[in-house]
Amino acid sequence: MFVADLETPAVVVDLDVMERNLSRMAEYCRSHNLRLRPHTKSHKIPELAKRQLAHGAHGITVAKIGEAEVMLDAGFTDIMIAYPIIGTGKAEKLVDLATRAEITVSLDSVEVARAISAEAKKTDARIGILVELDVGFHRCGVTSEDEVLAIARAVAGLAGLEFKGLMFFPGHLQVAEKERADLRVAVNDFLERSLAKLEDAGLPVQIVSGGSTPTAREGHLFTGVNEIRPGMYIFNDRNMLAVGVASLEDCALSVITTVVSTSVPGRAIVDAGSKTLSSDSYQVSGGTGFGMVKTDPDADVERLSEEHGNLNISRSTREYRVGERLAIIPNHVCSTVNMHNQIYGARGERVESVWEVAGRGKVQ
Amino acid sequence: MFVADLETPAVVVDLDVMERNLSRMAEYCRSHNLRLRPHTKSHKIPELAKRQLAHGAHGITVAKIGEAEVMLDAGFTDIMIAYPIIGTGKAEKLVDLATRAEITVSLDSVEVARAISAEAKKTDARIGILVELDVGFHRCGVTSEDEVLAIARAVAGLAGLEFKGLMFFPGHLQVAEKERADLRVAVNDFLERSLAKLEDAGLPVQIVSGGSTPTAREGHLFTGVNEIRPGMYIFNDRNMLAVGVASLEDCALSVITTVVSTSVPGRAIVDAGSKTLSSDSYQVSGGTGFGMVKTDPDADVERLSEEHGNLNISRSTREYRVGERLAIIPNHVCSTVNMHNQIYGARGERVESVWEVAGRGKVQ
Repeated sequence: MFVADLETPAVVVDLDVMERNLSRMAEYCRSHNLRLRPHTKSHKIPELAKRQLAHGAHGITVAKIGEAEVMLDAGFTDIMIAYPIIGTGKAEKLVDLATRAEITVSLDSVEVARAISAEAKKTDARIGILVELDVGFHRCGVTSEDEVLAIARAVAGLAGLEFKGLMFFPGHLQVAEKERADLRVAVNDFLERSLAKLEDAGLPVQIVSGGSTPTAREGHLFTGVNEIRPGMYIFNDRNMLAVGVASLEDCALSVITTVVSTSVPGRAIVDAGSKTLSSDSYQVSGGTGFGMVKTDPDADVERLSEEHGNLNISRSTREYRVGERLAIIPNHVCSTVNMHNQIYGARGERVESVWEVAGRGKVQ
Repeated sequence: MFVADLETPAVVVDLDVMERNLSRMAEYCRSHNLRLRPHTKSHKIPELAKRQLAHGAHGITVAKIGEAEVMLDAGFTDIMIAYPIIGTGKAEKLVDLATRAEITVSLDSVEVARAISAEAKKTDARIGILVELDVGFHRCGVTSEDEVLAIARAVAGLAGLEFKGLMFFPGHLQVAEKERADLRVAVNDFLERSLAKLEDAGLPVQIVSGGSTPTAREGHLFTGVNEIRPGMYIFNDRNMLAVGVASLEDCALSVITTVVSTSVPGRAIVDAGSKTLSSDSYQVSGGTGFGMVKTDPDADVERLSEEHGNLNISRSTREYRVGERLAIIPNHVCSTVNMHNQIYGARGERVESVWEVAGRGKVQ
């Protein structure tokens, strides 16, 4: 089967590019003595997580218990759930996972630690705990070294838990390279203060786990970091182009679409809307558009309806005709893949793999 | 099972509210002699489409061939695919559907009509065709009455096709009521000119199919319209509140979430991010936020990560604590439901139904 034989819209991964992305990140980590724990939320496909391990990853990251179950069933034995686990039935499930594999979770409150411990202590399971720091993204994470210490101490005293270290997600560093360097100063300051507190308290830190594709190759510049959790690097996307951590030839994933209408002057409509690309926005300041037409950067993927990509082609110099195919690089690969039950891997024009997005829809 | 027993995030539909929404729309259509052909993209669940028929709908609308297959397999016999069908394998599939049910499609080019006819004429199938008009949304649709006539004539002369009339999607009327009235004037002008052309040419028009929940109860004010295709009305959402076609008590669908972190001052983080709510934006001019916390309108669902809803609670007067549950009304129900493999129907606090979102992921 060839890419041209696929019905559209179809998500197609260039395997050569993907494998180069995997190799490069693994090589970077090796050369800086960092453990690589890719975040598999970007694909949710066990087969791709296996390729990441084959390229030198030490374990994987997931966001949800349901995703961990999928990966565990596929044979993974070292899984970090980078999410505070709280709510009906969740601690029980977590403990069940921990009886079958090495499980680490992040958290930022004593409440969550206590709820997990209450279940864990009924069993032999031992769950690794990382305390999450808010290094400036203002989402999860404690905001002072005193809180870091308080939670670490509580965790160390709770049955069934093992305090393993720290984690953070520097989401606010999804910006251009120069700004990242400036923002890193404050991150490192907080990391230093936290690590000093823990050392003074005699609480050993095995893991300091950092972000994320935009900062991945700066992992070695963060104080104490010995593990990184990039996700998007496997495919890259329009946002990674914008922040300068990937070039066009590093973008492995495209959405193959068909032009279905050119009736409105200045417009071409393709069969990929928000239910195909996702409506995730372009993250650069003031950025607009929902993707990049690979063969025509002058076309603006200006608006999305659920099933229509509405291209403004008024600045474009090429003709658009009904029935032709376009490849679009989405803003955010993680959200795009998540729309699909299956995606394809191609070597050149030949489709080599059909992957079920097995972790998709495991929202709990 | 009770709503409180569901793991979060969970999409829960209040059945009493939903049934009232279905009754009201059916009653409106009956009283104005309009056929109701709900767009089932809002739920993609055959059981809910059946309830719409039971409340007086005359048939259903879908967006994709894959969705039509799901509905046809569930026993539906009168399906409109409101989308131009073009591309590898699509016309063959469409014709196959038309051998099993009454199928109508919309299109806005002779190319699409010819491609469908080329397949249809190999069989006994006959496919109903509506010519799509761009009434101002600038997506699909022809923009002049001369083009309407040219395509209608071509369709009338093509084997396997039956010209049935006109359709339009007045998406630009998803605005406040007063503006809708002004914009309707131009829509009606185009409809009048088109209908006059077709009459002069002796091409009978059986169907003039109009939008969409925001304009649904103005269906009778559009020239010639005898059918409407609202989708969101079954549930309603934050955008429907904004344009004034639903009130809070008409919102049948909520996403039940759990607060997972309150560590960052002024923030509460819930376990519903863009992979649960969707990142579809708030459509009012300058509108921000990704949903409405039902019990706290002062909380702002300000940012979404994939699995985190980031609430700015700095204007809120209530306390937020880890582990508590919140119900959020999403911006756009269609995109929210599309994130989930299953959703729930509840009567009061009792969960009465678990529905598989059977048409989800049928992107082709």
